[in-house]
Amino acid sequence: MKYIGDKAEDMKIAYIGGGSRGWAWRLMSDLALEQSISGTVYLYDIDYEAAKTNEIIGNNLKSQWLYKCVNNIEETLRGADFVIISILPGTFNEMMSDVHTPEKFGIYQSVGDTTGPGGLFRALRTIPLYVEFANKIKEYCPEAWVINYTNPMALCVKTLYETFPKIKAFGCCHEVFSTQNLIAKAVKEIEGIECSREDIRTNVLGINHFTWIDKASYKNIDLIPVYKKFVEKYFESGYEDRGDWKESYFNSANKVKFDLFKKYGIIAAAGDRHLAEFVPFLGYLENPETVARWKFHLTPVSWRIKNREELIEKSKRIANGEEKFEIEPSGEEGVKQIKALLGLGDLITNVNLPNIGQMEGIDYGTVVETNALFTKDRVQPIVSGELPEAVNMLLAPHVLNQKMIFEAAIKKDKDLAFQAFLNDPFLRKLSYSDAKKLFNEMFENTKEYLLGW
Amino acid sequence: MKYIGDKAEDMKIAYIGGGSRGWAWRLMSDLALEQSISGTVYLYDIDYEAAKTNEIIGNNLKSQWLYKCVNNIEETLRGADFVIISILPGTFNEMMSDVHTPEKFGIYQSVGDTTGPGGLFRALRTIPLYVEFANKIKEYCPEAWVINYTNPMALCVKTLYETFPKIKAFGCCHEVFSTQNLIAKAVKEIEGIECSREDIRTNVLGINHFTWIDKASYKNIDLIPVYKKFVEKYFESGYEDRGDWKESYFNSANKVKFDLFKKYGIIAAAGDRHLAEFVPFLGYLENPETVARWKFHLTPVSWRIKNREELIEKSKRIANGEEKFEIEPSGEEGVKQIKALLGLGDLITNVNLPNIGQMEGIDYGTVVETNALFTKDRVQPIVSGELPEAVNMLLAPHVLNQKMIFEAAIKKDKDLAFQAFLNDPFLRKLSYSDAKKLFNEMFENTKEYLLGW
Amino acid sequence: MKYIGDKAEDMKIAYIGGGSRGWAWRLMSDLALEQSISGTVYLYDIDYEAAKTNEIIGNNLKSQWLYKCVNNIEETLRGADFVIISILPGTFNEMMSDVHTPEKFGIYQSVGDTTGPGGLFRALRTIPLYVEFANKIKEYCPEAWVINYTNPMALCVKTLYETFPKIKAFGCCHEVFSTQNLIAKAVKEIEGIECSREDIRTNVLGINHFTWIDKASYKNIDLIPVYKKFVEKYFESGYEDRGDWKESYFNSANKVKFDLFKKYGIIAAAGDRHLAEFVPFLGYLENPETVARWKFHLTPVSWRIKNREELIEKSKRIANGEEKFEIEPSGEEGVKQIKALLGLGDLITNVNLPNIGQMEGIDYGTVVETNALFTKDRVQPIVSGELPEAVNMLLAPHVLNQKMIFEAAIKKDKDLAFQAFLNDPFLRKLSYSDAKKLFNEMFENTKEYLLGW
Amino acid sequence: MKYIGDKAEDMKIAYIGGGSRGWAWRLMSDLALEQSISGTVYLYDIDYEAAKTNEIIGNNLKSQWLYKCVNNIEETLRGADFVIISILPGTFNEMMSDVHTPEKFGIYQSVGDTTGPGGLFRALRTIPLYVEFANKIKEYCPEAWVINYTNPMALCVKTLYETFPKIKAFGCCHEVFSTQNLIAKAVKEIEGIECSREDIRTNVLGINHFTWIDKASYKNIDLIPVYKKFVEKYFESGYEDRGDWKESYFNSANKVKFDLFKKYGIIAAAGDRHLAEFVPFLGYLENPETVARWKFHLTPVSWRIKNREELIEKSKRIANGEEKFEIEPSGEEGVKQIKALLGLGDLITNVNLPNIGQMEGIDYGTVVETNALFTKDRVQPIVSGELPEAVNMLLAPHVLNQKMIFEAAIKKDKDLAFQAFLNDPFLRKLSYSDAKKLFNEMFENTKEYLLGW
Ligand SMILES: [Mg+2]
Ligand SMILES: [Mg+2]
Ligand SMILES: [Mg+2]
Ligand SMILES: [Mg+2]
Repeated sequence: MKYIGDKAEDMKIAYIGGGSRGWAWRLMSDLALEQSISGTVYLYDIDYEAAKTNEIIGNNLKSQWLYKCVNNIEETLRGADFVIISILPGTFNEMMSDVHTPEKFGIYQSVGDTTGPGGLFRALRTIPLYVEFANKIKEYCPEAWVINYTNPMALCVKTLYETFPKIKAFGCCHEVFSTQNLIAKAVKEIEGIECSREDIRTNVLGINHFTWIDKASYKNIDLIPVYKKFVEKYFESGYEDRGDWKESYFNSANKVKFDLFKKYGIIAAAGDRHLAEFVPFLGYLENPETVARWKFHLTPVSWRIKNREELIEKSKRIANGEEKFEIEPSGEEGVKQIKALLGLGDLITNVNLPNIGQMEGIDYGTVVETNALFTKDRVQPIVSGELPEAVNMLLAPHVLNQKMIFEAAIKKDKDLAFQAFLNDPFLRKLSYSDAKKLFNEMFENTKEYLLGW
Repeated sequence: MKYIGDKAEDMKIAYIGGGSRGWAWRLMSDLALEQSISGTVYLYDIDYEAAKTNEIIGNNLKSQWLYKCVNNIEETLRGADFVIISILPGTFNEMMSDVHTPEKFGIYQSVGDTTGPGGLFRALRTIPLYVEFANKIKEYCPEAWVINYTNPMALCVKTLYETFPKIKAFGCCHEVFSTQNLIAKAVKEIEGIECSREDIRTNVLGINHFTWIDKASYKNIDLIPVYKKFVEKYFESGYEDRGDWKESYFNSANKVKFDLFKKYGIIAAAGDRHLAEFVPFLGYLENPETVARWKFHLTPVSWRIKNREELIEKSKRIANGEEKFEIEPSGEEGVKQIKALLGLGDLITNVNLPNIGQMEGIDYGTVVETNALFTKDRVQPIVSGELPEAVNMLLAPHVLNQKMIFEAAIKKDKDLAFQAFLNDPFLRKLSYSDAKKLFNEMFENTKEYLLGW
Repeated sequence: MKYIGDKAEDMKIAYIGGGSRGWAWRLMSDLALEQSISGTVYLYDIDYEAAKTNEIIGNNLKSQWLYKCVNNIEETLRGADFVIISILPGTFNEMMSDVHTPEKFGIYQSVGDTTGPGGLFRALRTIPLYVEFANKIKEYCPEAWVINYTNPMALCVKTLYETFPKIKAFGCCHEVFSTQNLIAKAVKEIEGIECSREDIRTNVLGINHFTWIDKASYKNIDLIPVYKKFVEKYFESGYEDRGDWKESYFNSANKVKFDLFKKYGIIAAAGDRHLAEFVPFLGYLENPETVARWKFHLTPVSWRIKNREELIEKSKRIANGEEKFEIEPSGEEGVKQIKALLGLGDLITNVNLPNIGQMEGIDYGTVVETNALFTKDRVQPIVSGELPEAVNMLLAPHVLNQKMIFEAAIKKDKDLAFQAFLNDPFLRKLSYSDAKKLFNEMFENTKEYLLGW
Repeated sequence: MKYIGDKAEDMKIAYIGGGSRGWAWRLMSDLALEQSISGTVYLYDIDYEAAKTNEIIGNNLKSQWLYKCVNNIEETLRGADFVIISILPGTFNEMMSDVHTPEKFGIYQSVGDTTGPGGLFRALRTIPLYVEFANKIKEYCPEAWVINYTNPMALCVKTLYETFPKIKAFGCCHEVFSTQNLIAKAVKEIEGIECSREDIRTNVLGINHFTWIDKASYKNIDLIPVYKKFVEKYFESGYEDRGDWKESYFNSANKVKFDLFKKYGIIAAAGDRHLAEFVPFLGYLENPETVARWKFHLTPVSWRIKNREELIEKSKRIANGEEKFEIEPSGEEGVKQIKALLGLGDLITNVNLPNIGQMEGIDYGTVVETNALFTKDRVQPIVSGELPEAVNMLLAPHVLNQKMIFEAAIKKDKDLAFQAFLNDPFLRKLSYSDAKKLFNEMFENTKEYLLGW
């Protein structure tokens, strides 16, 4: 990499999971739209075909970036300036077990990739992969900045730091952005003022997908009372900020968010489907009917499988020119972060990092999500204070499990993994023996990806 | 108080709850048997009649102690050398609600005075009383040593220290002694060696009624392997160390204890009825039938009421000379502790104290149970190490609740109290709305003793 | 106060020490230059005359601000939106003792207001004043933001927070700005690039007047190697960034700064006269001759007295129109900070705040200086990492003394104060009995302002 | 090893530094006097001759112990039940530099083996040896209990634990015993009561050779007021508890101890020659004349050399039967500790261990000296509270240096070592450049034993 004036050229970005049709395509768009940086993106994926297709797509774009599909991780990483990781740990078969096996025992997960029984098993198969990534990064590009998009976010980031403590890594998720968009809509609805999420200042704190905003302002206006009025207005009906909640598994009427605000007086800053999974005992996930009553969705893995097939088809069409790849801002901030780290303009945004002081009342080392200042070669968390005690209590089992699941995965300690399983609030419903039965069944189902246990 | 040679004379012991027919009678016996100390025991009780009867009983004994019933707490405490507290917070009516209201929701507590929904409500009405005791002690006898026998033990001791940080207080419970007796029996059964609990060295750690022994020896013999063989031998049948488990609500076959040893490899050191309440999800308390299968008992409050009536009759008979008061060693260590604190012989025994370093892995300030060295005017905990991680996890919600319940009681914060209620593992079984319903019902039932809420 | 569009009107700023001819005049200038805020500045000073003169000066300016001199602190503070404090604790008589009494024992302080024997005694008389300020702020304007400019900075801020933990206070000092200006000059000298201190990104950490910069960049250029070359070039000669070092007691050739960089590899970010006082054993302050050799100055209090007289004359001339008050940007950031706190534009700058996570390796509660993000009604420190261990060791006695001096002042504990006195590196030179003699003499000299000892 | 009834037979004790004519001979005496344990002591020493002579001496004794001199450490350690270490790190040549080089700069050390410039250099050459011992113990006898007698005690013990965290090690020193003997004499002098040190209960806390007793009792008598009267009586004259202070370099009149009691109100529990070195700024060590005025001694290394020669001669005479070896109780507690660890009787005594909660206000991991309970295979520190703040401050630089010297020795970091050197209160007297000169000279003098720097 070299700097020419205020531009960085000849950069190398290593993309692990480079066959991705979500994060990778959004990156391609954002890179194409950004004139101040250029170079080559190395695409690595265990699905070589997918990476290859993305290489074609990327190189077809009108962009100052070259895309290069490679089939070994070492070549991908060697000398990289930035590393991006977005992978699927295991296959949708394993995810099928993660999400749907617990349903037999009356446990309904709306996502199943972060917490709950599904999140736990996903973590068990992800952590060893991230140990490997961290070791390779240490060897091949120890100075690179690493951006993680994979879930379970907190455990991915934790694994990177535990394995290679000097790693320069952080994890990104857009759930807070959506909440900021919702707040901007509340400003419009309540105050009649147009503003965008970028105009809003929020203090972010919590853990990924169970993140909170305790302070928010637009210019000189304190937005907490504004949001309060908004919640009061739409508490019963819900507010469908992205269109009819029924039209997409990813839509909702934000009723869970509003209910949490009523209960705790603070803004929950993630989609309802994520939030509900951290507090199943609050009744949002009793069964499919209650979920519908709360106006959000259980996301079936069958949909993911079908969606993937469609995306594969779409990628082929784009690659062979039958369909146009639309270059448009993705709403993600990866490229802005890269620019800031290159010294091309500061940025404050929310990221996932081990707690080194930014969050009070949570153990050091826990991966938490708060704002951070991005500047030349530095990401510094902003001290974000403490959650209300009642909310901290909701986090407590998840914070504990972050530590326990990590340890269990590293030591291949099945008893400890089961202990963590029992800690999860989802398990409140089951007797000890049913819990054991479920654990063993999920273990069996996914054991192909649980090597060394 | 003055010392004459190796004797202490003219001592003043203040007994709050001096109408007690359990702890108070045991104290009378032990005092009568101990020649090196003498003085007056002031008996104070909100049930003046009961204290008066105990005064008569005490003064009838052949003993170097005088008993004096007084009806105000200030006179009781003024200038006391030692303070003993054993009270019933509220009446058996409230305890009826504590123990049996949850049964309507399928929650069965075997004791209901320490943890679980019952322990929580008992704590809410006990804490304000202990705030008052601590303040009076600070005013009338700040240098006195204070021995607590009341449950919930940990929260009573915590309240004393939080209110008057320089208090010299500790809490005593005989559950560990029973376990030491059981271990002595194991030594006999497995090794063929006779020994008494005093001969056994145990390392004690945990919280009251959920206490553990991770190391034990008799002379040069490591007793953990001995206990392991003992458990293996009696795992199926159980071992009835105090006679037929069916004969008393307080007997058991130690099957819960053995099961915990199998699961965690460490000796649980309390009666099965206490242990089971900390881990209801392990299935010991599913319903009355499972309890019977585990060979222990739910202790109905109706029995306590009937028992009290019998004891009142008995106390009258003793007071008027119809029945003889049997002076015999109680097995408690209160008098030994008093002697040690007077400089009349050192003692190492287990007590409940705020954690100031004695237990690793548990927050400072949590009231924990470990061994301590008693010597002239000092009680110093012995550093006892850390529980196995899996056991520490079992303690975690209870440690958290010690803090939350205390705060809720001090602040009269109903939301926080409910939050703590939800933290309790017993609540795993209930939906959020059922939990709320139960909480409100228990609150209503006992509100006469919940002043200022 | 009210907002009209992006302007704040009818603000009330309370100025304690409003007779100041330094900080107050700079504030007047900056306020006059800023169009987006307006209101009234209340001037309070125990030197009523001085405040009165400043009222006249302020009201004569072409400015949207009104100045009002009041002679009681309650009226000054009641309902204030912002409070500014810049006072002289005691008089120059006491400062004469602080700075010059130690010289009899061979101890030469270049400032004597922050650390060393002088800083300690100044703190002892300042802390009770700040206890009073904090209590009054709590009573009259608990929601106000409080800006402190008084030294000893760290102990002033600590006292505010210890007395009223919910206070919204921070302390400001321009020493880091000067260092940033010096770095900008280094960029010009070494790289040939013009830039201003605002263009430079620095990570600030340490304690006031002993602050450090471990990372610095200008756009994509890492400035640590640039500064290194600069130091190498000017190590011998020094670099007189503000003109001939001999011309002002406040000028220097930055040779202490360069020497510290050589020794510790990190940029010391305060004037040489402040830095030297924290590490007198490094030889910068052996005697007046060595000070001259290091090309900086001992600031005699006689100069301060003479300077004050001149400023009084000047203030009179300005007040009666004989001399013009020059409105020009002061280089301070108080007004920018006020705007940011009003929601009129974010700001990142260095401030003094209790450590709540922003600085690793330093006890929580220590007042440290790091960057912070200022936004609507919030000041959030940025996590700034840890100093090199060798530098941390240099801070250690001062961090300890911050705690000890505070305690001594609160408890009026002369032994503890002397203990702290002994901790100060300046005292390394003296025998115990000489140290005691010096302490007692300084105590006697200033006892008029040491009430209650 | 095996147990026959209450006896342990076939034990293996490994003695590193087995040529010792101090600790080793005392051990031989105590072993010969103890009937309940028997076995073989393996003697290893880099001075093979000395170990061989001790083998002959040991085997000539009427004792149930066999002595076996071996010339490799592996054979010594393999399968040992106990390991004893008492070595001289380097030779008396290095110690000559440690103690006497600083005198050129006016720094007088009374011992020079624990703290001060001498203690630091001794530590630098000791730590690598202890790394090796710990690694060998880990390999050859990981379950053995390790008793250290070598100075600098704290750093030896720290090195063992840092290198092999599961080591079962502790460090022993008799300085506290001497103080207990002195207190017993005070009881006789003031109260007219005969008692021995074993009858006295003391709470011990601090760091080795700078240890303190804040509570002491004999039966029901609080001994702090007794000691106070004793100090008042003998403050001027001193009290020569071991005969004329002039007769031995190791005698004193306890005047330093009395002075510290006056100043801090707590009993300093080590010999005056050790105590003085931690607080040279208190004036005890200004120069040889002040030392004489305080009635204690500087211990010249020339005396040690001469003494060693005499002891060598004596050892030869004993070995060849010309002189009788007197078997008598040594006053040390090593054998009692061994018995207790074998389960043959509990013991409470003071030992040096990493802080795991036993001492408040001192960082975890610092090697501190407090009481501990010895029982079967366990050494558990007793929670000993906190030193008075003023005393804690005296400890502060030494606690810091324990950490820094260890790190410097491990990393061979000369700058860090010099930083630690500067931290030492002895260095208060010197300018920076003199300090550097002294450091370099001491480094040069001892570089033969500073490998890898
Ligand atoms: Mg996400
Ligand atoms: Mg009990
Ligand atoms: Mg300043
Ligand atoms: Mg010693």
